[in-house]
Amino acid sequence: MEVVDILDKYLSQVQGEIKTALSTVEPDELKEASLHLFNAGGKMIRPALAILSAEAVGGSAEHALKAAAAVELIHTFSLIHDDIMDQDEKRRGQPSVHKIWGEAMAILAGDTLFSKAYETVLWTETDGMDSRLVVGALQTVADSCVNICEGQALDMGFADRLAVSEEEYLHMIYKKTAALIAAATRSGAILGGGSEEQVEALAEYGRLIGLAFQIQDDYLDVTSDEDNLGKPVGSDIAEGKRTLLVVHTLEKAKPQDRDELIRILREKSDQSVARAIEIFQEYGSIDYAHDIALGNVEKAKKLLLILEDTPAREALMKLADFVLERSH
Amino acid sequence: MEVVDILDKYLSQVQGEIKTALSTVEPDELKEASLHLFNAGGKMIRPALAILSAEAVGGSAEHALKAAAAVELIHTFSLIHDDIMDQDEKRRGQPSVHKIWGEAMAILAGDTLFSKAYETVLWTETDGMDSRLVVGALQTVADSCVNICEGQALDMGFADRLAVSEEEYLHMIYKKTAALIAAATRSGAILGGGSEEQVEALAEYGRLIGLAFQIQDDYLDVTSDEDNLGKPVGSDIAEGKRTLLVVHTLEKAKPQDRDELIRILREKSDQSVARAIEIFQEYGSIDYAHDIALGNVEKAKKLLLILEDTPAREALMKLADFVLERSH
Repeated sequence: MEVVDILDKYLSQVQGEIKTALSTVEPDELKEASLHLFNAGGKMIRPALAILSAEAVGGSAEHALKAAAAVELIHTFSLIHDDIMDQDEKRRGQPSVHKIWGEAMAILAGDTLFSKAYETVLWTETDGMDSRLVVGALQTVADSCVNICEGQALDMGFADRLAVSEEEYLHMIYKKTAALIAAATRSGAILGGGSEEQVEALAEYGRLIGLAFQIQDDYLDVTSDEDNLGKPVGSDIAEGKRTLLVVHTLEKAKPQDRDELIRILREKSDQSVARAIEIFQEYGSIDYAHDIALGNVEKAKKLLLILEDTPAREALMKLADFVLERSH
Repeated sequence: MEVVDILDKYLSQVQGEIKTALSTVEPDELKEASLHLFNAGGKMIRPALAILSAEAVGGSAEHALKAAAAVELIHTFSLIHDDIMDQDEKRRGQPSVHKIWGEAMAILAGDTLFSKAYETVLWTETDGMDSRLVVGALQTVADSCVNICEGQALDMGFADRLAVSEEEYLHMIYKKTAALIAAATRSGAILGGGSEEQVEALAEYGRLIGLAFQIQDDYLDVTSDEDNLGKPVGSDIAEGKRTLLVVHTLEKAKPQDRDELIRILREKSDQSVARAIEIFQEYGSIDYAHDIALGNVEKAKKLLLILEDTPAREALMKLADFVLERSH
């Protein structure tokens, strides 16, 4: 099965769960603001990971469907709030929520998705799921939400600093991106009735491809194009973000290039994006980022070998590769 | 026992839970922003209600301690985000979180408290609490979070409208304020092992004193003073809010007074606060609001009579009265 078919297979069911969860939201303005980014698309990789993790340990897709929807709700909540904080005007090729409805309604739309995520997982219990498994799944989800906030705060703090070590960078992107992906695979494995060994392997698989996913985002920001990204090339540079490309270059570069890159990042404009990319290339930082992402994906795939060879495991292998194959 | 002693009894334990929950937050800036309003005080009525509800059905304070902390975390999250949306510069006599740390960090601080609230209740399970009770408690908490968002959105929408009916107003304040107070009493009663009848009675008690609490807030906005309120008298008028005083006056007033009040509310300034209060007085709207709040408190206290006569029930009776006795 191709990746597009894997993602498609669960797409409509997960979208159905999300739309049901949001159907009762009032007033209409809040409902529309809450639904906006779902209507704008989204690859739904996180829900697919949750469902496949349940299947890969012998559970059914049904077991993880609500947790899958919850993880996507939390992801979307974080996008809406991040776009306000970063003052990003576009997301998924559409105006961001705060551009259309204003900041106050966008804050509330994010909060609503966040609340609905928990409600949704808690409804799993009324489907006859064992309460202990529901609590276990929610623990990892709640933990990842704390991490997302901390990761965003660390990321914002990095922009004011000169250098950030690779270790600090990896810690930040674990919190900002990988923790939620690990929560998707872990909660799916828990709800699918996996053994402790299976749950830990799938959680670590999620963490590793989550790190690769963020590093690939850093990479795509300078190697993809605006049509695919849904935002201008080099947005991270224009926002002064410490990506792995920046971290590596600042570590390796000659003082003169280092100073120039820092000056460009401090400018916070899109004037010198092309020059920053040249500097990255000079120090091999674009290839370096790609290699690190690739290494994580390979490690993640090896972890899956403790699972039985099923179509779900095969799909998880393909999704790991897809993290690096995607163009947006 | 006096109300101040009832609140004090649990204060340090609940504060301890909250500080423990927030102790690991990083970076420091996010931790400080998250702790700010707890350091600024707060009456901790909601946690006391949760704990007393557990005790009133025969459980121990311990059973409800983490749910109590969670409800206060959620309340504080909503204050931080509301202050951004309403552009309130002061809270509890201190600069609001976004005035000190900026809007981005304030959004994140709110999100962090929100996430920590769920983590905290989920830790209840590791204390040996039955998972089914934890799920039941969390369902009511998650439900109240959705209501808080909807209530705030409805409240914001009201400010753009001419008239709002009393029914619409009560629906809004149920969502914005009473739902969380009902979640405090309901989750406390669930975790304390209450019967269905006891849980429903305490939830309804919470709902009724929650409505009274908000109506009393409307009342205090024009009858208290800046020292007690921690913000200027008539802030609701200056923000153009549809309080019960406004709703009642617009329903009863002669066209001329009605038009003047609408004009004052649209001004969104503190220039005509005194004149608006005169108009409220002319139509008995201040007394009317007080009477409605009093009726709710009396109904709430009657519901407690199905419970055994214990010190916890006595304390809940006193807290119901306190809703109307407080000056801020």
